[in-house]
Amino acid sequence: MSNTPDTDNAVRAFADGHRAAFLAELSEWLRIPSVSADPARAEDVRRGARWLRDHLAATGFPVTEIWDTPGAPAVFAEWPSGDPDALTVLVYGHHDVQPADRADGWRTDPFEPVIEDGRLYARGAADDKGQVLFHTLGIRAHLAVTGRSAPAVNLKLLIEGEEESGSPHFPELVRAHAERLGCDTVIVSDTGMWSEDTPTVCTGMRGLVECQIDLHGPGQDIHSGSFGGAVPNPATEAARLAAALHDDDRKVAIPGFYDGVVEPTDHERELFAELPFDEAGWLRTAHSRAALGEAGYSTLERIWARPTAEVNGIAGGYQGPGGKTIVPSAAQLKLSFRLVAGQEVEKVQSAVRDWAAALIPAGIHHEITYWGATRPCLTPLDHPALQSVVRAMGRAFGQKILFTREGGSGPAADLQDILGAPVLFLGISVPSDGWHAPNEKVELGLLMKGAETAAHLWAELAEKGRE
Amino acid sequence: MSNTPDTDNAVRAFADGHRAAFLAELSEWLRIPSVSADPARAEDVRRGARWLRDHLAATGFPVTEIWDTPGAPAVFAEWPSGDPDALTVLVYGHHDVQPADRADGWRTDPFEPVIEDGRLYARGAADDKGQVLFHTLGIRAHLAVTGRSAPAVNLKLLIEGEEESGSPHFPELVRAHAERLGCDTVIVSDTGMWSEDTPTVCTGMRGLVECQIDLHGPGQDIHSGSFGGAVPNPATEAARLAAALHDDDRKVAIPGFYDGVVEPTDHERELFAELPFDEAGWLRTAHSRAALGEAGYSTLERIWARPTAEVNGIAGGYQGPGGKTIVPSAAQLKLSFRLVAGQEVEKVQSAVRDWAAALIPAGIHHEITYWGATRPCLTPLDHPALQSVVRAMGRAFGQKILFTREGGSGPAADLQDILGAPVLFLGISVPSDGWHAPNEKVELGLLMKGAETAAHLWAELAEKGRE
Repeated sequence: MSNTPDTDNAVRAFADGHRAAFLAELSEWLRIPSVSADPARAEDVRRGARWLRDHLAATGFPVTEIWDTPGAPAVFAEWPSGDPDALTVLVYGHHDVQPADRADGWRTDPFEPVIEDGRLYARGAADDKGQVLFHTLGIRAHLAVTGRSAPAVNLKLLIEGEEESGSPHFPELVRAHAERLGCDTVIVSDTGMWSEDTPTVCTGMRGLVECQIDLHGPGQDIHSGSFGGAVPNPATEAARLAAALHDDDRKVAIPGFYDGVVEPTDHERELFAELPFDEAGWLRTAHSRAALGEAGYSTLERIWARPTAEVNGIAGGYQGPGGKTIVPSAAQLKLSFRLVAGQEVEKVQSAVRDWAAALIPAGIHHEITYWGATRPCLTPLDHPALQSVVRAMGRAFGQKILFTREGGSGPAADLQDILGAPVLFLGISVPSDGWHAPNEKVELGLLMKGAETAAHLWAELAEKGRE
Repeated sequence: MSNTPDTDNAVRAFADGHRAAFLAELSEWLRIPSVSADPARAEDVRRGARWLRDHLAATGFPVTEIWDTPGAPAVFAEWPSGDPDALTVLVYGHHDVQPADRADGWRTDPFEPVIEDGRLYARGAADDKGQVLFHTLGIRAHLAVTGRSAPAVNLKLLIEGEEESGSPHFPELVRAHAERLGCDTVIVSDTGMWSEDTPTVCTGMRGLVECQIDLHGPGQDIHSGSFGGAVPNPATEAARLAAALHDDDRKVAIPGFYDGVVEPTDHERELFAELPFDEAGWLRTAHSRAALGEAGYSTLERIWARPTAEVNGIAGGYQGPGGKTIVPSAAQLKLSFRLVAGQEVEKVQSAVRDWAAALIPAGIHHEITYWGATRPCLTPLDHPALQSVVRAMGRAFGQKILFTREGGSGPAADLQDILGAPVLFLGISVPSDGWHAPNEKVELGLLMKGAETAAHLWAELAEKGRE
């Protein structure tokens, strides 16, 4: 049986036929309040991990394990294809959830799933339990429809338990198990699509460099009448640095910052432009009154495909009511940079270091502190594995699949970097799902489409997914 | 008897002959802890005012009054010359003192004066009781040596009681009594000289404009990955404003800011350059590592004779430990501007308003709040009244008198503005006197020179002080 309309119908029929049982299983899992940020819920997080391990074993995975970390455990499962030439795919998701309290504005108990108008409401419904679980329904459909006893690819799952707490032990975990996690492709199911009507595949995430620059001027606050205008002021110099981040075209003005940047292709920009983007609506989501960014790029290009520099915090001198006529002793800048493919964390850090040193005048001492950086990841539109995801989604949705990127940064890049495999994103959540917010939900229709996509994906990848 | 060496010797002999009694009187006044900032000392402040009134009456002033304010009272005294053509001079000082606590580092009780090695240690010794009281010794010497029964000028004294609390009711007081305070010249005795070896006259104070600029961006902090680089960031815009205060020559870059500025004359700059200025020592006082300011001007010119713009405080976004990848919702700038002669408070405020409005991009709302501004004051070097002060000091000190200005701003400008009279500064305190600090002292030798200067001044002004 190949990739024909018959297959598509058979997969759909299988998913629909098992929908009720699948939702009952998902609801059972959602009832476990696996809030990783809450120490009092640590046992619930472990219980959620055991539930998933048992569920994967019941699905048929011959290998299911709980991997401990210094924090919450991850769940690993493996199902070899049996074919020595088969592609190996690793699915990433997480079994922990954000905190949720009825008093935050939930209409129903966040840990007592409710189905209403084709939606399932519960903490974790979309982020990420629903999106992890559609894979098991998908695998069952894949096996049932193809008649196989094992997936067409060597399938591995790594479902971590600390994503909502910043994944503090994740890189370490991946490094420690790098050999067993080895794969040709990573599929991340912890993202979303453009909208219910516009199915999309995300092709990359931006990287992140964060730093703090501390500037030290006078040994103590000094009188601005007696000394101001004749000695350097660290608040002024912090401001001059922050202002020098961008030129008048709002391009980042740090020498070398754009070195190696992979520009979005004309084709990708055309496809971005096909998205039904409503800037006024987007501005409402941004709680902002106007768009402003790098000249020559659209808003979507600015947040997805272009590197940026942002002032996250600035502080220096007197901040209380009224005035205080001082030259302050010190000031502080907190900056973050979003990186795109082609930029290297270390090169950006070094460029920022050189830029600051060149601008800060004699008499001001400064230190730069960097912390936890993340590399960007991007899969080209013509990458065979990405095309497989697009075809699998196209068969499930019966529509043209467009492309997005993710402006934020995430642990997916660790998988790319440590395992050396391209990261693809298969997510069926939509912006209205309310991640991290009260009344989180998932669209049941999209959950089924996710399962169908997953069912098609292994065959698509097996057939044409190799680079 | 005219202005001859004999007169000078006679004045010196009178001052020396009355030195012990004068120091006993001053010590009696210094024992009254007239701390205006401390509500518990309010009665002491009133007691100090009464002491001064009685002392002025005993000195011979025919009019001595206590003027109440909503806060601490001022002392007014008047001694008409009797000559219908006589010049009228108003002496300004204050009878309140800074707080002082033995535990702050005082070697002796701050309110129990101690004389040691030619110095008198007590709170208020230099700031300002010592400098108020040398005038009464000076008047007695003036009358004794000239044989007059009234001063050569119509003499008025206004000694306020809230200077150390920011003179909150002073402008109101001066306005209410403007007619009785009317004068040709104001003599402020609440300042200092360059050093014990280098007597100087201060010729002006800078003015002050203070404001806060609040910038509002997104309605709440938003995610820098999802929105950063595509909407305006109020912390970035606050920094761009602060950075735009100065050009690369560190000139203030606000259009119109320098309009009307009175440049120091070449002669004044030459005289400034004669002062034994030790930049390394000055930098130690400034707790700073390097000098930096407007190109083309020396450090002294920058702090005395040039207007400046200073960032007193800047704040926006996250300021805690580590990072937070947000576009902050709001930011705040606290700025102060020192003004020199020729600049108008209202014009500078309006220039700042226009400058900010032109630079802040669409999507950022802002407000500017101004408070308590002070006008600059400056007396030209060739002003006859200033020349009278210089001659009087020269006779007392037997040295060339050089010139300084005061970089700070003070209530003297209110006297200039409300009374329409030039303000001259006669102060004999030196930087080591420790104003506002523990172990405040006054040099007894300089206190006597102050009394001698005051004794010569009324004759000098009567003779050549009219413009």
